[in-house]
Amino acid sequence: MSLIDYILQFTPYSKLSGNLHPIASVIVTLLIAIVSYIMVNSFMSKILGRNQFNPQGKHVYITGGSRGLGKAIGKMLAAKGAHITICALNEKALDIALEEIKGAARHRNDYSQLIFNSVSADLTKNEESIRALDEASAKHNGRVPDIIFCNAGSCIPKVFIEQPIEDFEYMMQLNYFGALYTAHKAAKLMAQQGVKGKIIFVSSLAALVGIMGYSAYTPSKLALRGLTECLRQELILYDIGVHCFFPGNMDTDGLSEENKTKPQLTKKIEGDDKQTPEQAAKSLYKGLCKGNVFITSDLLGDAIRASTLGFVEANNGILDSFLCLMIWIVSKPARLIADKFVRDGKSEYSVIPADN
Amino acid sequence: MSLIDYILQFTPYSKLSGNLHPIASVIVTLLIAIVSYIMVNSFMSKILGRNQFNPQGKHVYITGGSRGLGKAIGKMLAAKGAHITICALNEKALDIALEEIKGAARHRNDYSQLIFNSVSADLTKNEESIRALDEASAKHNGRVPDIIFCNAGSCIPKVFIEQPIEDFEYMMQLNYFGALYTAHKAAKLMAQQGVKGKIIFVSSLAALVGIMGYSAYTPSKLALRGLTECLRQELILYDIGVHCFFPGNMDTDGLSEENKTKPQLTKKIEGDDKQTPEQAAKSLYKGLCKGNVFITSDLLGDAIRASTLGFVEANNGILDSFLCLMIWIVSKPARLIADKFVRDGKSEYSVIPADN
Repeated sequence: MSLIDYILQFTPYSKLSGNLHPIASVIVTLLIAIVSYIMVNSFMSKILGRNQFNPQGKHVYITGGSRGLGKAIGKMLAAKGAHITICALNEKALDIALEEIKGAARHRNDYSQLIFNSVSADLTKNEESIRALDEASAKHNGRVPDIIFCNAGSCIPKVFIEQPIEDFEYMMQLNYFGALYTAHKAAKLMAQQGVKGKIIFVSSLAALVGIMGYSAYTPSKLALRGLTECLRQELILYDIGVHCFFPGNMDTDGLSEENKTKPQLTKKIEGDDKQTPEQAAKSLYKGLCKGNVFITSDLLGDAIRASTLGFVEANNGILDSFLCLMIWIVSKPARLIADKFVRDGKSEYSVIPADN
Repeated sequence: MSLIDYILQFTPYSKLSGNLHPIASVIVTLLIAIVSYIMVNSFMSKILGRNQFNPQGKHVYITGGSRGLGKAIGKMLAAKGAHITICALNEKALDIALEEIKGAARHRNDYSQLIFNSVSADLTKNEESIRALDEASAKHNGRVPDIIFCNAGSCIPKVFIEQPIEDFEYMMQLNYFGALYTAHKAAKLMAQQGVKGKIIFVSSLAALVGIMGYSAYTPSKLALRGLTECLRQELILYDIGVHCFFPGNMDTDGLSEENKTKPQLTKKIEGDDKQTPEQAAKSLYKGLCKGNVFITSDLLGDAIRASTLGFVEANNGILDSFLCLMIWIVSKPARLIADKFVRDGKSEYSVIPADN
């Protein structure tokens, strides 16, 4: 008796047992095997999977920690017993955020031993990024933070030919170099001090799918993907883990800012799915616990990640290939629809700004 | 009689006809169908496919046109009857290259009507990039070039923590912003003048696979992929075509320069496959003729492209999914081997440079 016949006898389709066309039987058996594999695998990894991320007692450094995702990560990890340093430009926002982060840890027995700190710095500058990291380390006897979240970032969506070059330069400087400066210094210090730390870059789903209106933002965030891929391999030399997070739109002050300059067509193409920073932080945490290199915050993001992997590690070989297949199927119609929106919008964008 | 039985009777396996296990029969039939589809499809597109790229009589503008791939593109398109403007920093190199490019067109009857021009400019600066484009247009009554190759680029591979921040900034400035400045101005002029042109970014295979030693180069070239994806959609507004080329290593002066600073481990991981700039230029030309958005220069490149597509258009749906499957199979062992090289090399890289 084949597996499929055996299973069928417990279902309302028991009469089919033994009468299935051999091809149908093979296909159904395969499907059952794959679904069971995914279920068992996910169950086993929940039960047996080694947690690869334990922030308790670790010093966590978060750039862009005064609001949005950065603050949410700070609160979440403070509640789990990490020492937190947040870094951003605005001192007042830092003070308010630090109070919230402390509040998240106040229920803990070890609260009095936890060190909370904030540093104001302009992360678009290398010297400032180095100084901020040095100040954070100073509170821990000069030891570099164990876990670095390079999270500071900003998005100004606009029509390409209307967007000033300064916007392109600013976003690359903050989103990419802001992360690089911190990561470069931190990796060097970790290597020197023998700290087997972690560096986590916060990119964006908009890095993995480039649509109209994001021509300045997408490249700056995609550059972080490239950096992650290189460093994931190279920093094996010093046992430093490197990860990249690709969250979708989050309901933050940043998003409200963005929407002011976002072209109507861009809004139409991307839709208005969004999640809270707390939800995104939770996804990031789960991904880190599993040891995933590329981490996303929802199913669509996961599917897009799976369809752009190249030589990057899959999070789950079988599930990822299914997700990749899903994108393979939907990408063409989705692209044709979005392209049609753009084509239909031609007349609205036919007034070309005068040359400057 | 099934298809497979019909085919079998013409082969040495004719005895199998009618005796194949149904599953084997299905699999063999599927394989035959797919291979035939790919062959017929490729044959049909060669015979019937509309050529989507005709440079004859067009003004082609090539940044980094004084050597390597840029010069090879110039020679190839001059031979096909295009007006050529090359742009680079070194005037002497420009003069020599322009003579070679002219030489490639000298056999043509319309040679005397073709305009060849060179402009010296520092493409890492926006004002200079704009001036260069203006000078090129001036020779054509102020009309923006029809076809723009943003090709200028440079690579300094190095160990991450030893690489000075200035290298990261320089490569991003030349490889990404050097292309952006030209593309931004050109797109605006094309939109204003109603020129239905083409913009082609030259990225690199090293953008799609990030390995040790390329942490400054990969992000700068991957940013161009993101820019292409956004602009491919957005510039539909003005009927401007956008493409991105991902060549592998080419046998050029640039590569010899690179190899001087390239870590031994990086050489070990990437191997030493390389092609001539002329071969790469030919692949690029073929891809443009087919209207492909992402173009590569060899089979491995094509497979890597297919495995990182996301929402980008496939060049050939069926073939690309096979290539993607191929990478799916080899990526894990390949990654594990490369990671092992790095792990085994730990002792060589254990001397951490003093802090600066």
